[in-house]
Amino acid sequence: MPKPKRAQESEVTMTEMVLPNDTNTLNNLMGGRLLHWMDICAAIAAQKHSNRIVVTASVDNVSFTEPIKLGNIVTMKAKVTRAFNSSMEVFLDVWAEDIPAGQRISTNRAFYTFVAVDQNGRPIEVPELLPETEEEDALYASALRRRQLRLVLAGRLKPAEATELKALFELP
Amino acid sequence: MPKPKRAQESEVTMTEMVLPNDTNTLNNLMGGRLLHWMDICAAIAAQKHSNRIVVTASVDNVSFTEPIKLGNIVTMKAKVTRAFNSSMEVFLDVWAEDIPAGQRISTNRAFYTFVAVDQNGRPIEVPELLPETEEEDALYASALRRRQLRLVLAGRLKPAEATELKALFELP
Amino acid sequence: MPKPKRAQESEVTMTEMVLPNDTNTLNNLMGGRLLHWMDICAAIAAQKHSNRIVVTASVDNVSFTEPIKLGNIVTMKAKVTRAFNSSMEVFLDVWAEDIPAGQRISTNRAFYTFVAVDQNGRPIEVPELLPETEEEDALYASALRRRQLRLVLAGRLKPAEATELKALFELP
Amino acid sequence: MPKPKRAQESEVTMTEMVLPNDTNTLNNLMGGRLLHWMDICAAIAAQKHSNRIVVTASVDNVSFTEPIKLGNIVTMKAKVTRAFNSSMEVFLDVWAEDIPAGQRISTNRAFYTFVAVDQNGRPIEVPELLPETEEEDALYASALRRRQLRLVLAGRLKPAEATELKALFELP
Amino acid sequence: MPKPKRAQESEVTMTEMVLPNDTNTLNNLMGGRLLHWMDICAAIAAQKHSNRIVVTASVDNVSFTEPIKLGNIVTMKAKVTRAFNSSMEVFLDVWAEDIPAGQRISTNRAFYTFVAVDQNGRPIEVPELLPETEEEDALYASALRRRQLRLVLAGRLKPAEATELKALFELP
Amino acid sequence: MPKPKRAQESEVTMTEMVLPNDTNTLNNLMGGRLLHWMDICAAIAAQKHSNRIVVTASVDNVSFTEPIKLGNIVTMKAKVTRAFNSSMEVFLDVWAEDIPAGQRISTNRAFYTFVAVDQNGRPIEVPELLPETEEEDALYASALRRRQLRLVLAGRLKPAEATELKALFELP
Repeated sequence: MPKPKRAQESEVTMTEMVLPNDTNTLNNLMGGRLLHWMDICAAIAAQKHSNRIVVTASVDNVSFTEPIKLGNIVTMKAKVTRAFNSSMEVFLDVWAEDIPAGQRISTNRAFYTFVAVDQNGRPIEVPELLPETEEEDALYASALRRRQLRLVLAGRLKPAEATELKALFELP
Repeated sequence: MPKPKRAQESEVTMTEMVLPNDTNTLNNLMGGRLLHWMDICAAIAAQKHSNRIVVTASVDNVSFTEPIKLGNIVTMKAKVTRAFNSSMEVFLDVWAEDIPAGQRISTNRAFYTFVAVDQNGRPIEVPELLPETEEEDALYASALRRRQLRLVLAGRLKPAEATELKALFELP
Repeated sequence: MPKPKRAQESEVTMTEMVLPNDTNTLNNLMGGRLLHWMDICAAIAAQKHSNRIVVTASVDNVSFTEPIKLGNIVTMKAKVTRAFNSSMEVFLDVWAEDIPAGQRISTNRAFYTFVAVDQNGRPIEVPELLPETEEEDALYASALRRRQLRLVLAGRLKPAEATELKALFELP
Repeated sequence: MPKPKRAQESEVTMTEMVLPNDTNTLNNLMGGRLLHWMDICAAIAAQKHSNRIVVTASVDNVSFTEPIKLGNIVTMKAKVTRAFNSSMEVFLDVWAEDIPAGQRISTNRAFYTFVAVDQNGRPIEVPELLPETEEEDALYASALRRRQLRLVLAGRLKPAEATELKALFELP
Repeated sequence: MPKPKRAQESEVTMTEMVLPNDTNTLNNLMGGRLLHWMDICAAIAAQKHSNRIVVTASVDNVSFTEPIKLGNIVTMKAKVTRAFNSSMEVFLDVWAEDIPAGQRISTNRAFYTFVAVDQNGRPIEVPELLPETEEEDALYASALRRRQLRLVLAGRLKPAEATELKALFELP
Repeated sequence: MPKPKRAQESEVTMTEMVLPNDTNTLNNLMGGRLLHWMDICAAIAAQKHSNRIVVTASVDNVSFTEPIKLGNIVTMKAKVTRAFNSSMEVFLDVWAEDIPAGQRISTNRAFYTFVAVDQNGRPIEVPELLPETEEEDALYASALRRRQLRLVLAGRLKPAEATELKALFELP
């Protein structure tokens, strides 16, 4: 079994400039383009943790509340939060800057999951994830709840059995 | 207030061929590229319902269980399921075909939400959605639950107040 | 010999949003970009009829009379009209919508031909095409004339021998 | 009225390397991609003749007989053949090279037509075209026939009135 | 005059995955594609230092000694080294990783210069750069030599007057 | 050893139209995009001289003094100036045209070097270059100086040994 690795070893920073073809008729970044960038950034983090080819298994609910403008700089930071056999959850923090205007806003937080595979596309075991900071500990702990929610939403777990998920909904 | 519109009026079919730049080193379509296509397809459905410029408000949890190969044809069907003031939920059904091999698989089902905006990007009211078929009725009814889940996940609704959501988790 | 197939089985709908890089300095869709999309859409129809890899053999005269604007939605419908040994003629109907303005115009009608090939790129027989509707019958019948015109224009048929073509030019 | 210009003044050479995303699953250049490149090359020739913004009016029948491979170099030469009020016919000659293999083949010959427009998209008069070489003379003369064929195919001229076209079909 | 800023405030990390269209027929990243990415990364660093729109003024000699393969992850770090009125020199350090193979190599070091401009494209003064670390001090000091070399190569400074440059060539 | 070839046999002309995604927020072509186009154009010239796959070895200092606008036509001419065993220096001359405005400016001159390689990426000998015109002679002669400067800048030659380079700096 592969040796456990620290969360920080998987950290990736990706930076993109919003170009015309990334925008809608209001000159705002299209949500799907951002989801595409986030997928690549998160996949690199999962690659770094597992030293394997990885394939996207899921993306959790992502909200888009702030418009990101043409010419803005989008910065994404991704880090693995927890590993489960062959799968890894990756947390992404995204912000956008209008540098000439001196504005910088937090735009999205998202969770993607990836599965490590061998050259034939078969799932393969990945190292355990060692959280170190307080934030990493919190993300590690809550990963179980998010995983149960994914399984429930995918119809692969009965809600009644999602014991951790109940905590999310503050249910007795 | 705009006149209600039938679900079917918003239906959009989009077809894409998987090209080399859409794939990872296993020659499989990258998840983020598919999310990008789905966003555009769903946005067109929301445009058709509202006759407005629309911006992505959120994407719900999406799972990727089937690899889609280089050269495959990806078909997406999108239709608005329900409208809430200025926002619309869109349901997407995605399948992939390896036509020379005669294979066709269902790959994803997803829900995106969009907000209709005016030329200055301010939210603007949209028509009500009229479901007609049995499937449209079911999607219309369950839209409320999904909306509550989005609000809870975004921290804008207390789980205890998400009365519809409890049904999803079969809670008393 | 492969079993004949109905025209309808090859029908493909493709939808594209006109993005900045698709446009000229008047913000209109460039003709070449539309020809590129039409080729992909028609190729998928030919793939569906033949269940083979297909390569473009020709495009007939295409006229561009209506400007299509940035942000417009372009919808293409393609369907095989007739098969000739290893080749297939595909008819495309294209329209453009400015959805917020509630405008929808027919922009182009075109005929592409494709050859079905095996893995080594050698032509291979395709099923016969069975027209069913009145429009399919008409397209099936006139395919012969268009084929003769292609052969004449390519210098592969003498005009004097293009018996069907004379009908097109209403000649005795 | 603008001063006539020589054919040679509009000549444009464009060179493209066939990259992975330009190819189908046989690693051959897709026909639509080539039509896209040819449209841009021909548009530049029409711009040079008219010193105006130009929009594509039509493309004549194009045949694709030779596969062009990934990594090949595609060279296009475009030159205006004749001007008609606000429109120009452009002739394109296309060849492909596999340079390491020392192979160079002629792949396509095509005619595109463009309309010169002002900033509001309205047609505007262009200079007459002066052919000088023997080839330019021949293309200039035959442009009338091709124009009649386009008008007949577009339903804007009755075949019986297409006096020049009859020459093409060697009819009395 | 704008307040001086620390070198570190301009630091940018950009990460790219090498996709098929970025590669030549040996499946190696093309040099020009890397120069394109480096230009964007360096431009963002110059934007951060100046809080202005910036335009590329020059790139110094760049060598490509290590092949970067399809699927590799390219990481670029950019930081302003020195400011001169309206121009800034940016240093880039680039490395490539084949993560599944556990290989990480340094591939390039480069210097780009940018000019800060106002909305009309006119040069505008930028803050002075404050180096803090030993490496930043060394880059700050040697920036003068590199600037003289650029001016000599552009024919805007006589070699005899390039007093700092002589140090580079160890001349008395 | 391969037979020497004339400079003119390697000449390549490449033409690009500046599209929205190639531009910055001032609607000017980004420097990195131009470097990318120049690399492809120069690579084709090196391919033509060597009839081999070629990889970029270096680009010399390039200055960007003239803004190139959206919709401009960029023309590049590339020609091999001299060969050294397995490497070739290519000279590029670039100009930009605003055709409707009747403006044409010289924008860049650049030198790229390439190495010819076999299918395994190993350097392989190329033909000698035969200069014929006065300009080709001058470029051939000065290639030695530029090569020494590259080697000095790459730390692979001591300045004291760069005898040809001294001429560039007019040193005794």
